[in-house]
Amino acid sequence: MNRMEAERIKEALQYRKLIDVLCDENQFADVVLEGGYVINTVTREILEADVAIKGEHVLMVGDCKDLIGKNTKVQNVRGKFVSPGFIDAHMHFESSMLTCTEFSRLSIPTGTTGMVCDPHEIGNVLGINGMKAMIEEARTLPNQILFTIPAMVPDAPGLETAGEDVNSTHMKDILPDPLVRGIGEIEHFANIQPVYENAPHIIDDLIAAVSYCKGLGKTVEGNAPQLFGKDLAAHIIGGGNHVSCHETTTKEETMEKLRYGVTVHMREGSSQRNMADCVRAVTEEGMDSRRLTIVTDDVVAEDLLRDGHMNEVIRRAIAVGVDPVEAIQMTTINPAQHFGLDDVGFLAPGKRANIAIIDDLNEMTINSVYLNGVKASEGNDLLIELGSYTYPESVKNSVKCDPISVEDLHIPARGNKAKVRSLVAIPFQNLTNADEFTLNVENGVVQPCLQQDVLPVFVIERHGRTSNIGKGFLNGFKLKEGAIAESVAHNTHNIIVTGTNYEDMVTAVNRVIAMGGGIAMIKDGKVVGDLELNVGGLITDKLDAQEVSEEIAELTRLAKDELGCEMEVPFMHLSFWTLVTSPDLKITDYGLIDVKSFEILDPVIE
Amino acid sequence: MNRMEAERIKEALQYRKLIDVLCDENQFADVVLEGGYVINTVTREILEADVAIKGEHVLMVGDCKDLIGKNTKVQNVRGKFVSPGFIDAHMHFESSMLTCTEFSRLSIPTGTTGMVCDPHEIGNVLGINGMKAMIEEARTLPNQILFTIPAMVPDAPGLETAGEDVNSTHMKDILPDPLVRGIGEIEHFANIQPVYENAPHIIDDLIAAVSYCKGLGKTVEGNAPQLFGKDLAAHIIGGGNHVSCHETTTKEETMEKLRYGVTVHMREGSSQRNMADCVRAVTEEGMDSRRLTIVTDDVVAEDLLRDGHMNEVIRRAIAVGVDPVEAIQMTTINPAQHFGLDDVGFLAPGKRANIAIIDDLNEMTINSVYLNGVKASEGNDLLIELGSYTYPESVKNSVKCDPISVEDLHIPARGNKAKVRSLVAIPFQNLTNADEFTLNVENGVVQPCLQQDVLPVFVIERHGRTSNIGKGFLNGFKLKEGAIAESVAHNTHNIIVTGTNYEDMVTAVNRVIAMGGGIAMIKDGKVVGDLELNVGGLITDKLDAQEVSEEIAELTRLAKDELGCEMEVPFMHLSFWTLVTSPDLKITDYGLIDVKSFEILDPVIE
Repeated sequence: MNRMEAERIKEALQYRKLIDVLCDENQFADVVLEGGYVINTVTREILEADVAIKGEHVLMVGDCKDLIGKNTKVQNVRGKFVSPGFIDAHMHFESSMLTCTEFSRLSIPTGTTGMVCDPHEIGNVLGINGMKAMIEEARTLPNQILFTIPAMVPDAPGLETAGEDVNSTHMKDILPDPLVRGIGEIEHFANIQPVYENAPHIIDDLIAAVSYCKGLGKTVEGNAPQLFGKDLAAHIIGGGNHVSCHETTTKEETMEKLRYGVTVHMREGSSQRNMADCVRAVTEEGMDSRRLTIVTDDVVAEDLLRDGHMNEVIRRAIAVGVDPVEAIQMTTINPAQHFGLDDVGFLAPGKRANIAIIDDLNEMTINSVYLNGVKASEGNDLLIELGSYTYPESVKNSVKCDPISVEDLHIPARGNKAKVRSLVAIPFQNLTNADEFTLNVENGVVQPCLQQDVLPVFVIERHGRTSNIGKGFLNGFKLKEGAIAESVAHNTHNIIVTGTNYEDMVTAVNRVIAMGGGIAMIKDGKVVGDLELNVGGLITDKLDAQEVSEEIAELTRLAKDELGCEMEVPFMHLSFWTLVTSPDLKITDYGLIDVKSFEILDPVIE
Repeated sequence: MNRMEAERIKEALQYRKLIDVLCDENQFADVVLEGGYVINTVTREILEADVAIKGEHVLMVGDCKDLIGKNTKVQNVRGKFVSPGFIDAHMHFESSMLTCTEFSRLSIPTGTTGMVCDPHEIGNVLGINGMKAMIEEARTLPNQILFTIPAMVPDAPGLETAGEDVNSTHMKDILPDPLVRGIGEIEHFANIQPVYENAPHIIDDLIAAVSYCKGLGKTVEGNAPQLFGKDLAAHIIGGGNHVSCHETTTKEETMEKLRYGVTVHMREGSSQRNMADCVRAVTEEGMDSRRLTIVTDDVVAEDLLRDGHMNEVIRRAIAVGVDPVEAIQMTTINPAQHFGLDDVGFLAPGKRANIAIIDDLNEMTINSVYLNGVKASEGNDLLIELGSYTYPESVKNSVKCDPISVEDLHIPARGNKAKVRSLVAIPFQNLTNADEFTLNVENGVVQPCLQQDVLPVFVIERHGRTSNIGKGFLNGFKLKEGAIAESVAHNTHNIIVTGTNYEDMVTAVNRVIAMGGGIAMIKDGKVVGDLELNVGGLITDKLDAQEVSEEIAELTRLAKDELGCEMEVPFMHLSFWTLVTSPDLKITDYGLIDVKSFEILDPVIE
């Protein structure tokens, strides 16, 4: 009997018990939430009703007086709102640098009871085994954590180096797991024409993985930034005819995608905030919102601590004019339907008793949270025990390259001036523009230019496979002194570094290597600040959320105060400029990548 | 490699080809429907657009000029409406007395491209093998015919006799079939309290079957007439937390069920028409309609021929004030979502090219229909070949009882008068009321009473298992002369007979037995009309739809003209008075059944 069968039989036994309580007048509910305003996420109504709970499930919503016995715990929730727990339909734990456990510790009291995680960061570093390690952690937790698994690692074979390669042949080893809900964002088919022309075998492999996934009754997540018309059609078909997109940034793009049947996961994370634009398809154009969700994608620990999790994104949706109940639908029933999860996202008989009790609907202040019928939090206080989780050694020590020297980073050019290609940062987006700048050349090496805000940027392969170093330039990071390096660099997570001088960049990279992964800031040869990320070079199992948040806040403060970096959320921004699946110009360990043509470009034009 | 895998691989190959056409400017669509008003069933919009088709799938919806090559067939559909083909989410082929093939021959030109059939009639007569025979027929057809399988036959063990028993242990033999979408209407758990109190083992068996079904990722159909509150909650949980109901008859019941998350299949069949009342939850109360569908449940061949199929029920919905696009949603995307079918119900890239082209949206006149990318009909003309289908001998000769005599039917009583229990017919409902009448007794036998319109009614077990004869009375059938018998009598399909005199009733029953199943009308000892139903005693594979329709029309005419029966659709009404899963009083081969108490009642009170 496999794990899924055991779960199913357990549910069957619980359901039998629920029917007993409903049909036998001498049996009673375990808990009754009395007299609240219950959010009906199917009919989009608010109805005054009790909610009765038995075991892990909702027994009944309505008048539940008959179900109250002498051992029933009754919580008076009059004047409060009773909602299904919120679901974050697309997120990466790695972005928070926290374990699932520490993320959950913060997330549960904010009303989030479900998350669909795409573990493609740890998957890029450690392959199937890395993802399995994260799934094992999730299995220990009481909130609902599901996974969508990348069907191809790296996303752009031949343009970047991952720690392990993953393709369709690996799917049978992980997709059947009951916590795996399907295939994650198919970034490798985000650039339709370049892939079609340059790497058609990627399409064959994608279709093979998707076909197998659909055969298991599981879903496929899309990734279709700026795709329209035939390109969007090809992307949808590549994903098996029903996909999502969490990379949609405008109202028009949202409308087009909804018309094509795409579920639009409107992103509202720490560095990328697209919901306010996307949701105008509803607030201005009156489109049906059933295929819209709000997701965080990437959120940092500090934001979680300060603002909350899904309650915060709902609050923001309400602030831009979305009806509160509709905003809750976008974070409950809509994601549940998208993933075919029939027992969450809605409070009705037999559903999982994952419940958020809300004091103020517009402010989304969470009074208390039930998980599987058990009161899990009150205010910010977690009432259930979450042990700290330690990852196995097999997913640690993942930085496998040797220290580098200044010569490794030099970008040579002749003469006094060089025309160079540069990424142009777009704040709060993972997209970049591309531009050209003229920089000084000293001793045959192109020099950073603070006046133009153009700095060298490098990606050092760190998986022990190629020793590649990709070289390019970066405009708009607003760094004034020193260097910043990190082993978090989407999606292959080699080490990215930028800085105002070569020496500090080398020191920063070598500091990251010495820590076995993490973030390092160097000024004048000295460590200004650093953070060890011991699991895959991405997250830490040594710190809790408060500690990570404080560390990152301190590093962010130091980046600004000591290095003069004016970019907000600098480490997250830096980590996205390696993402070769979203336009226009990115950098990997292979070099500068023209995302639209799949070409590797020389950083120096002339 | 099983059948499902082969289908999946075929789809994968076709999808690869679609991507080729979208990405390679030298490849083109097979068909382009040019310039129609396309019904977008996700966004509830009508947008002027082309629809391009490649192979069996929609390639693209939008501006498809680029996809027209010299071999592309272009159909100008300007001024017409282009809709996903319609889906009948709950129906029984047996009610039409037609094979799936003959039903499809009529149904396809009306825009219906998908049906979810519950073969519980043939299942009650012939068990799993009977249902498999029907599934094998469906596999030969080009329209999408899926099945939901009864988890228990008979619905009320101990109160009626079926030809074969089915329970949870049989599910593994049939549920995995790719054409089987799940478990059919759980009628055996429609009467919550009586089942709980009298037959709790039914609940255990139901939960076991449902649990197995959910493990396969398949759905469960409910059956919850007049259930509210705790009873409705218990029914939903018995069905595994998300069920449908096609037995809902009022606005209030619809609202309650939607609030509980039930998908309400609003019924609009030949004898039972509930949509107009149910849909007021939308037209009057403004409730979200995403979990409403319109279904036929039971439709006779004559109605199909005269009025159409799903186009007719959409027309009726529009006539009672439903927005046309919303009515189409109720028959396309809503049923598709309910059953988790991601490739139908919506026209978008990669979806199955099952398309209804509509001349007039309010009149729902169907111009032409595409099935799997092939033009299947134009007007009423089928353009594709459907062979006539002959069932195997194993599902024929299903009437296994000996002829009866007048003495078998006598209902004895003492004295001159008897107070009797009687079903009271409710036109166009499968429900009945119960009442008591005083009838004359002659020679110790209770006599029919034409003045009060109270006739004896009998159910003769015909599966060769018990030789039971159930006895009772029936008010409201409006029969003036002779007798009508039929082997169609829900759900166990024993032979039901009623009449104005015992002799004609016996002759009618024996005629049905002699034919091996069917309908017989007798007056003064002579056959007024009959129809052989050679497959399971339910349908015929000897006649086409036109012939069955004409036969039934003629029988109906004869019932009225020769027997004076004023009841409309008399054979269908008669066949429902054996249905012990809907209230109040019904009759089976065990006798009169009080549906609410599970009691078998004596027809004579005193």
